[in-house]
Amino acid sequence: MNDKLEELKTRLGEIADLTNAAAILSWDQQTYMPPGATEARAAQLTTLRKLAHERLVADEVGRLLDELASDTADLDRDSYEASLVRVTRRVRDRQVKLPTDLVARLSRAQALGRHAWEKARAASDFSIFLPHLEELVDLARETAEALGYEERMYDALLDRFEPEMKTSQVEALFAELKAGLVPLVQAIAERQDAVDDSFLTGEFDVDRQWELGLEIVKKMGYDLNHGRQDRTAHPFTISFTPADVRITTRLYPDQLKPALFATIHEAGHALYEQGIDRALDRTPLSDSASLAVHESQSRMWENVVGRSRGFWTYWLPRLRQTFAPRLDGVSDEAFYRAINRVRPSYIRVEADEVTYNLHIFLRFEIENLMLEGKVRLADLPV
Amino acid sequence: MNDKLEELKTRLGEIADLTNAAAILSWDQQTYMPPGATEARAAQLTTLRKLAHERLVADEVGRLLDELASDTADLDRDSYEASLVRVTRRVRDRQVKLPTDLVARLSRAQALGRHAWEKARAASDFSIFLPHLEELVDLARETAEALGYEERMYDALLDRFEPEMKTSQVEALFAELKAGLVPLVQAIAERQDAVDDSFLTGEFDVDRQWELGLEIVKKMGYDLNHGRQDRTAHPFTISFTPADVRITTRLYPDQLKPALFATIHEAGHALYEQGIDRALDRTPLSDSASLAVHESQSRMWENVVGRSRGFWTYWLPRLRQTFAPRLDGVSDEAFYRAINRVRPSYIRVEADEVTYNLHIFLRFEIENLMLEGKVRLADLPV
Repeated sequence: MNDKLEELKTRLGEIADLTNAAAILSWDQQTYMPPGATEARAAQLTTLRKLAHERLVADEVGRLLDELASDTADLDRDSYEASLVRVTRRVRDRQVKLPTDLVARLSRAQALGRHAWEKARAASDFSIFLPHLEELVDLARETAEALGYEERMYDALLDRFEPEMKTSQVEALFAELKAGLVPLVQAIAERQDAVDDSFLTGEFDVDRQWELGLEIVKKMGYDLNHGRQDRTAHPFTISFTPADVRITTRLYPDQLKPALFATIHEAGHALYEQGIDRALDRTPLSDSASLAVHESQSRMWENVVGRSRGFWTYWLPRLRQTFAPRLDGVSDEAFYRAINRVRPSYIRVEADEVTYNLHIFLRFEIENLMLEGKVRLADLPV
Repeated sequence: MNDKLEELKTRLGEIADLTNAAAILSWDQQTYMPPGATEARAAQLTTLRKLAHERLVADEVGRLLDELASDTADLDRDSYEASLVRVTRRVRDRQVKLPTDLVARLSRAQALGRHAWEKARAASDFSIFLPHLEELVDLARETAEALGYEERMYDALLDRFEPEMKTSQVEALFAELKAGLVPLVQAIAERQDAVDDSFLTGEFDVDRQWELGLEIVKKMGYDLNHGRQDRTAHPFTISFTPADVRITTRLYPDQLKPALFATIHEAGHALYEQGIDRALDRTPLSDSASLAVHESQSRMWENVVGRSRGFWTYWLPRLRQTFAPRLDGVSDEAFYRAINRVRPSYIRVEADEVTYNLHIFLRFEIENLMLEGKVRLADLPV
């Protein structure tokens, strides 16, 4: 068994290197790449993802997994060996259903779509992004058909992020949440003036916001020997292995809240990734359990920790000092209430999220409607 | 012929994507990568270079090149088709002689060596880098033996950078230069006080140095839609395709000259790379003619243009304004003489230059001596 396991790990290691290299190229595209390199970057990303796909679906890997499945049948389900075989099989079974050509077209459309989304966002002109969104939704449908599904088309895509979960289950869950949330949001909307948060708007030096954000996330345990922070159009976390997990933020010179809580949020994601056992490096086991679990970590840090009284008992003196004398007249309790003020707001749609992330919370509904053709994309209220 | 040419171009395109992806990962390692990611990065770079090598030496590529060589035999030597076949054959013939395992070991040693070099440099402690240098020189010898050579071991490595050139030719050229340069340098050394350049030392705001450097290179024609500048331990230029050619610089808060002329120098390299015909993208033709030709472009901009009277007739007013009032008492002629002052100085040795770049100018002699075992590395005067 050991020889076969080693051969499998060697193959999976190379596939992980290709996938991680693609993630680095994607990070670079979103942070530092000059805009004129978009076409070249799309070609590079497509080749890396195509080769990773080809190598994973290769017959030899299927044969190795079949043999190892019987070799590990008597082992504890949670043992390293049994888990590696089970999870790799699950990931591979999905990929086998996707033609390499589709993987390549999707990768290219995502790279070009991301660039168009950034341009559209900067110009506040949805028409720049619309043709890309249409292509991405078409490719999402093609992907779902290739993967197959029993009830709903979205089941095929949801499974990538919430293993075994069905669209109907999410709908039932969201229906329950909606029943409770809608009257709550209405009640809150009627009392918009109950909490004063005007002091969170005004001039806040962006360099100081940046430094304070880093100070907080370091204290949270985010390890800068295995991570770093950069500026992007929208904050995100990306992992190239637990040894290199990067966060990004967006700074607003006239608002304190967005960067502060986005940074705490992204560091929550990053702590999860940095905490993955290094013994699982370069295998499909070195991944999150699901996207909802991932988001639970980021939102726990952002909301349960970052909006708590205890957190600000520690950090408020430092915040006052950083932006002195801006917050001098604001009491601890007023600050606590202000950062917890709730407002109805828009939800964002990003370039490759159409195929990937949109199922979380409200986005789930938008994506599902788009996928099933129940909204015309050109009519989206943007 | 067209089908075979298309098949060749498809294969070469994927190989170029892998090589360019490796260059992006190398750039990231030298600019933004957190230090704790060194091992993971070495694995990623090794996989990318190994796959690129395997795909280039594949039998199918050899067969295609053989067939296309006869198909293109009657074409103009400088035609796109004939050039593509001839240059690809030359590049591939070299790679075929290198075992994939050696390519992988070299790639890994370079990635780890670069990290050690940065640590050694920061700590001024050569012993950190020494074992890596020894390994790199051993691998350079192994590479030279695998490639084969008629006269001198260094011929095998020199050929990668100066096609067809021999070590003995470089030695003859350098002997001639040395005969003229040594008395010149001595004469200059004896008159060290003839030119005053003390005003080039003192406080020069690094952000202003950065901005002025960018202003100058943009005016030189360096296209920031297809390039960018970052800070590194040592300045360099790296091209991922002519669509994305990046330069780096190092800023000294107490000196004006180093960053200024290094930036002009690197932009000279970058202009050469950005000028390569985009019709050659993703093929071995999208490369410089030789490293000496490359260096001729950077040094032409740095010295022939950047140290000329005409250049400073244009830029000196802007420079005075940028650092006012520092240079107020300095005449145009005094500035011109100061930036042209010559001093004997040390030459640097970098992590992977042992196998690659050391042949330029004086480095040629160091590398040659190291390779032939005529100096003990531990005795290097560092």
